[in-house]
Formats: sequence, structure tokens, C-alpha cells
Amino acid sequence: MARFLDVREGFAGATAQQFADVHDADLAIEADEGVHCEKAWLDAEAGKVFCLSTGPSKEAVMRIHERTGHPVIEIYEIDKEL
Amino acid sequence: MARFLDVREGFAGATAQQFADVHDADLAIEADEGVHCEKAWLDAEAGKVFCLSTGPSKEAVMRIHERTGHPVIEIYEIDKEL
Repeated sequence: MARFLDVREGFAGATAQQFADVHDADLAIEADEGVHCEKAWLDAEAGKVFCLSTGPSKEAVMRIHERTGHPVIEIYEIDKEL
Repeated sequence: MARFLDVREGFAGATAQQFADVHDADLAIEADEGVHCEKAWLDAEAGKVFCLSTGPSKEAVMRIHERTGHPVIEIYEIDKEL
């Protein structure tokens, strides 16, 4: 399993509830791809959501987010965490 | 205190040791600005380092990273974490 950090757009002015709904939607289907979204962060001013996940590949993570309606615009594979 | 996620460049091919040295340099001086770098992630292929921190302002976090030689290229204030 690898670890990823991804970025999604389109969350300008999103409320905590809207953000939670998006994250819950990811959690509900992530097992289909062997993915787990560990943490998510919202910057409502920049309109971005960041997700730290584990999974078999970038593509698997991207498919989960695509299915829940918020395609990934950037994704990074983490080599090392401190 | 607010929470931030920042992005730095220039780490293409960085080793785990080089990454640790940069993070340790931040930790050594972060108290000067009331900042704490909680987590850091390296993507050596993309050449980027991501840092999750707490602090009084974006500018405080940016000053720490500037002083340790790796200026921030993007910084986001976190409204909500899940």
C-alpha cells in the first residue's frame, strides 16, 4: 500500500457540513478500491480540499473521488512522513 | 491559533535524510514564531514537501520556512479537519 496526498477544487464557501458530506461519501465507497481516506482538510477561502489516503495506486484514489463528484486536480505519492 | 497546510518545492530526488534535516531545521526555530510543524510529507518525484502546522498566521509559518532555506510556494488556512 502506498500513501497519497490529493487536492480537489470547487469548495469555495463550503460549510463544515458540506465538507463532511463529501468526506462521508468517499468513506462509504473507498473500500471498493482498497483505499482509505485517513484525513481531510478544507480551506473554504481557497476552495480546496486536501485528502491524505492509503491505497494501491493514485488511480484507485482518483476513481473514488471521481465517483463522489469531486475529481482530483493534483495527487502526490508520499515517500516519507515525519 | 490557526492551522495551515503549506507546500514547498525543490526536493526532487531528496533522500529521507535530507528531508529529515529540513524538517529538523524548522522544528529548531519554529518556537520563535509560535509555530509548530506537526507533520511533513515528501514526494521526491514531484519534488514537493507538504507541512501541516499550527501558528498565529500564514506569515509566521512562512517566515520559519524562509529562514530554513525553503520558501513556501503555497499556503492554505484550514477551516475544518476530518
